[in-house]
Amino acid sequence: MRLEEARGRFAAAKVARLATADAAGRPHLVALAFAVSDDRIYSVVDAKPKRTTNLRRLRNIRTNPAVSLLVDHYDDADWDTLWWVRADGTAHVMEPAASEAQHAIELLLSRYRQLRPIGAVIAVDVSRWSGWTAVG
Amino acid sequence: MRLEEARGRFAAAKVARLATADAAGRPHLVALAFAVSDDRIYSVVDAKPKRTTNLRRLRNIRTNPAVSLLVDHYDDADWDTLWWVRADGTAHVMEPAASEAQHAIELLLSRYRQLRPIGAVIAVDVSRWSGWTAVG
Repeated sequence: MRLEEARGRFAAAKVARLATADAAGRPHLVALAFAVSDDRIYSVVDAKPKRTTNLRRLRNIRTNPAVSLLVDHYDDADWDTLWWVRADGTAHVMEPAASEAQHAIELLLSRYRQLRPIGAVIAVDVSRWSGWTAVG
Repeated sequence: MRLEEARGRFAAAKVARLATADAAGRPHLVALAFAVSDDRIYSVVDAKPKRTTNLRRLRNIRTNPAVSLLVDHYDDADWDTLWWVRADGTAHVMEPAASEAQHAIELLLSRYRQLRPIGAVIAVDVSRWSGWTAVG
């Protein structure tokens, strides 16, 4: 899949999965809302019920910035329609008051009317977009 | 979410995402078909077009058996229906001729009529099921 198509399919989706790993290399996986700006992917800690805002995804990124995000389409009735796009890159955590974080939050709010940002923003610099479609 | 509900929601889904990590702790993410048997999750390399059957997920598991799998439900119109279940555990790779691998392939074929197994089976021993629903 060409870069532009991969990035375009990813950017148009509404849910992605973020894999981080801790210092011992143990993977951790969450579903998240996101927004794409060129080769950067933003997400924000929101107000959905959580035990804490000191989330494992944030702790992992601070220890180990390598991350992978995936968007996929599944249809049990027709595997010819399956596709996925993966974004591999490096993440960092921005405090919500930072100006780029404010911009990210605006982008996110424009995509998700139910989003209630309450914490840090994650920015992922994508070093590789890769994708696959069942019917190439 | 109680263990039985988490496992039940996971087992009923048709697509999960598998996060592995390499020796350097770099996460890798794929979408996959799977089957659950008690606290073990199976998947198999299938015939969907791939460059190779020497897949990164298999190489990662052989180097670092810690994995995380996620099933989630997203509905852009109503965030009150959102939920996810995560299965954290330890994976190993079985050659397709092994008797447990044969059993796993039968389970998988009973769930996915379009599946064409062509390679190794991944078995994940789940040490922790965790889940979340928007409206608890």
